[in-house]
Amino acid sequence: MAQNMTLLWGSGSVPCWRVMIALEEKNLQGYNQKLLSFEKKEHKSKEVLDMNPRGQLPSFKHGDVVVNESYAACLYLENTFKSQGNKLIPDGAAEQGLMYQRMFEALAFNEKLYAVVYYEWFVPENERHDSARARNKEALRTELGLWEGYLQKLGSGSYMAGRSFTLADVIIFPTVATLYRSGLAAERYPKLGEYYALVKDRASVKASWPPHWLEDPKGEGTLKDI
Amino acid sequence: MAQNMTLLWGSGSVPCWRVMIALEEKNLQGYNQKLLSFEKKEHKSKEVLDMNPRGQLPSFKHGDVVVNESYAACLYLENTFKSQGNKLIPDGAAEQGLMYQRMFEALAFNEKLYAVVYYEWFVPENERHDSARARNKEALRTELGLWEGYLQKLGSGSYMAGRSFTLADVIIFPTVATLYRSGLAAERYPKLGEYYALVKDRASVKASWPPHWLEDPKGEGTLKDI
Repeated sequence: MAQNMTLLWGSGSVPCWRVMIALEEKNLQGYNQKLLSFEKKEHKSKEVLDMNPRGQLPSFKHGDVVVNESYAACLYLENTFKSQGNKLIPDGAAEQGLMYQRMFEALAFNEKLYAVVYYEWFVPENERHDSARARNKEALRTELGLWEGYLQKLGSGSYMAGRSFTLADVIIFPTVATLYRSGLAAERYPKLGEYYALVKDRASVKASWPPHWLEDPKGEGTLKDI
Repeated sequence: MAQNMTLLWGSGSVPCWRVMIALEEKNLQGYNQKLLSFEKKEHKSKEVLDMNPRGQLPSFKHGDVVVNESYAACLYLENTFKSQGNKLIPDGAAEQGLMYQRMFEALAFNEKLYAVVYYEWFVPENERHDSARARNKEALRTELGLWEGYLQKLGSGSYMAGRSFTLADVIIFPTVATLYRSGLAAERYPKLGEYYALVKDRASVKASWPPHWLEDPKGEGTLKDI
């Protein structure tokens, strides 16, 4: 069905997961795919670099069209396959405005999550500071408070941009799932906890759940004190 | 004409400039606007926080629809005013794919520029390292090499995603202009220099040129050795 598509990806990567959810939502199963290992530095392999000079995952191609950036791939897929699978951009200026706004606030959300969870991965040993670690954690708490408030305002059972599942959810859910995987206490952020419960069993999400999370359902607990 | 729109902005901010170019391209002049000062921390004022809980500029509103994130605002304006002003998303899957890809690669481009130019602004004094400064500069050089290559491949007189001016240019031009404002040597990256020359006199760009750059046309020269 989607045999002219190729996805190179890594398990547990938020950007990769976004593209996989979008593909499922648009009924684009059966694409060529290859699971690569960040630990083994396979994202810097020739196979990836040929498709993506940045040496990053996801790397994604549809025919000759290369759209490696996860936001680019999601927007591209929705616009190219508008009438196939689920419609991911709502009609109406207000709904679209909220969707775009949340989609792009998610850049900050994921950045703040990664700054805490992957601090050792990103920052060389001689440049690490407890003051930075503390500030990053505080920034993540503030960020979580914002999203908790957004969901509170939308009311129970809402998706990120209202009553229907949109690109905002495709983009944001992997970040939320990584929070819980990393030990966030659901009771501390009840609305985010509800949102997580609402989306985690959706078919597109289940079909693309990170395989190493399935093998080892217990995460590292880095966010226990957030 | 655009009296039901409000923009709070800061001079020289890449995200603010993107939104202002998009507004010009869509013939949405005459909006309410207020120039605020980052130095005076006016982006943390009540006026901003009421519209944008992140306390960031741009803050943008169309009627009741708040779209503060610059990418969100640009996509929102293009989709809401599709048939007004210049069309900023090309037809055709290949053209759209390239446009989205470049638009979102621009996140890394601007991040790498800001990491060099605003290092002292972002990193507290006790956390600064020469090793980080050197690595940030090297990352910016690598990034510039990528964009130089993209433009080389497209051929002379090209915009960022091909023969026409698109959202990719709306997003990327302010980053490129900031490079030259900061002292980048045009001869070292000739294709980027050509691109800068091609776009800098465009009506939408001139109309939104940062006012403090006009008052003081000489920048700081931070990038002289890049």
